[in-house]
Amino acid sequence: MRILITGAAGMIGGKLVRRLVADGNLAGEAIEALTLADWVAPEAPGDAPFAVETRRVDLGEANAAATLLAARPGTIFHLAAIVSGEAEADFDKGYRVNLDGTRRLFEAIRAIGDGYRPRLVLASSIAVFGAPFPETIADDFFETPLTSYGTQKAIDELLLADFTRRGFMDGIGIRLPTICVRPGKPNKAASGFFSGIIREPLNGEEAVLPVGEDVRHWHASPRSAVNFLLHAAGLDGAAVGSRRNLTMPGVSVTVGEQIAALASVAGEAVAARIRREPDPTIARIVAGWPRNFVPERALALGFQAERSFEEIIRIHIEDELGGSWVK
Amino acid sequence: MRILITGAAGMIGGKLVRRLVADGNLAGEAIEALTLADWVAPEAPGDAPFAVETRRVDLGEANAAATLLAARPGTIFHLAAIVSGEAEADFDKGYRVNLDGTRRLFEAIRAIGDGYRPRLVLASSIAVFGAPFPETIADDFFETPLTSYGTQKAIDELLLADFTRRGFMDGIGIRLPTICVRPGKPNKAASGFFSGIIREPLNGEEAVLPVGEDVRHWHASPRSAVNFLLHAAGLDGAAVGSRRNLTMPGVSVTVGEQIAALASVAGEAVAARIRREPDPTIARIVAGWPRNFVPERALALGFQAERSFEEIIRIHIEDELGGSWVK
Repeated sequence: MRILITGAAGMIGGKLVRRLVADGNLAGEAIEALTLADWVAPEAPGDAPFAVETRRVDLGEANAAATLLAARPGTIFHLAAIVSGEAEADFDKGYRVNLDGTRRLFEAIRAIGDGYRPRLVLASSIAVFGAPFPETIADDFFETPLTSYGTQKAIDELLLADFTRRGFMDGIGIRLPTICVRPGKPNKAASGFFSGIIREPLNGEEAVLPVGEDVRHWHASPRSAVNFLLHAAGLDGAAVGSRRNLTMPGVSVTVGEQIAALASVAGEAVAARIRREPDPTIARIVAGWPRNFVPERALALGFQAERSFEEIIRIHIEDELGGSWVK
Repeated sequence: MRILITGAAGMIGGKLVRRLVADGNLAGEAIEALTLADWVAPEAPGDAPFAVETRRVDLGEANAAATLLAARPGTIFHLAAIVSGEAEADFDKGYRVNLDGTRRLFEAIRAIGDGYRPRLVLASSIAVFGAPFPETIADDFFETPLTSYGTQKAIDELLLADFTRRGFMDGIGIRLPTICVRPGKPNKAASGFFSGIIREPLNGEEAVLPVGEDVRHWHASPRSAVNFLLHAAGLDGAAVGSRRNLTMPGVSVTVGEQIAALASVAGEAVAARIRREPDPTIARIVAGWPRNFVPERALALGFQAERSFEEIIRIHIEDELGGSWVK
């Protein structure tokens, strides 16, 4: 099994690589070789029991995709994307990378022909949905994105389904929940506080909460995101059928429930490190985001997320903090 | 008011042109000039009370769209498309015209900038939906097309909504029902029989019915299609909101109900000109098509179709047969 990962230098990409190195196989097949591609040169793991090649490419450039397929990878994890904020700030760049880059990758796969039909797992996003929403969003709810990023991902999903239907590849699109707790430094993303209010207090630092405690959102851990990708890589395409894009499971909680979970896992003193500082701009942006899903198809196909936000916090402590936190 | 029509040489395009010539105005504004564009040179109406320019262009070619916008049309009817069967037979051509051609038109509008923000009415299609379906399809049902044509139209809808949201244009996408009774000669399209079983008997000719009488489908007359386009051109964008693509109203009937309507309008002898000749291939294709919609948003916004299939037949007799038929 040869594997290609685009966007391999990103947070999820890095965790996926470490998991593949630890497992040594994917969907029951031994991994022979792994190609890591990204805009910046991805770091190669030092301890891989298989060949690892790193490639610095701009998927928005013509022919970039073709060079990544030279080894005919049987599985492709397509994670590369301009993130939401940047795709909104730079309209052309977002479309060039998130739409044209993805389409060129699909076209490069098709151009090989000759029976080549890799499993391609696309990291899509719940940003394909746009308000107003029902209380819970079912699998057959329509995609009316309110960002250019969400539009580009929705288009990628449509292309994936059509290229798969035509027999050019074997695609599965998975709509990731907001990933929480995101490791690393605080950032200015509008969604940053969902992770920040857990991560910073556990580090002994103050976190700012810019929205009300009644704000509800849809979360899964970075560990679940990697599990989703691996599970999608091994799925029986016939069981998925023609509807190739799936909303992933997650945990729907309010910010108040996030804070209560933090207090319950790490203590009231930790939860007390959250400072309320309402930001109407962030509150307005977040009001347009989905709150809750009933992802029946993904659950029936065996995808699993956490059962509670407490579990999401414990995974963060385990995977990022070596099991302890600043009490 | 200056108007551009792409796909002006097509059946709907031609009827739209004749209606604009007859009306002399659009959405309450006098028409100053009309540009008709198509792959083949469209015929100019001889009796227009305004300037008419005809242009032969391939929208799949770079820069083709820009030349059509020289006069800064305030309203654009974008009807040009490779039809379903051809888009399925020629993958590249379908994407080049139906996706790239549309995107280039949108980009050419955006490139003008300078406050130019035309109303663009996109002719989309119920082909954006794919089986399995619920008994009736609501406005928030998801788009999982089962053809490349449907995929391309679904992508066009997403681009239209994003370009509109970003303020580059003022788009409205309308999903047309199957247009019935389609005038002209019998053709080999899988949907051809829906019109053929009405049109041919009224002409005194035999029609072949390749599917069972229980097949249900969603119809509107060519006259309604033109009405939808005109109504969309005059819609208040604020009332539409951010969800810019609308399923048009129609009449849901079974083939058996179509035949009963024909007998009721034109007599049993006319309806007896239909010969049953089951074609499993056509039956299989048609089984994947939507049967019935509840287009609440379009109805609330004032779009109107026929109330019955009898009315659709009477409109055909009025508009195409001069009021009489072969008894």
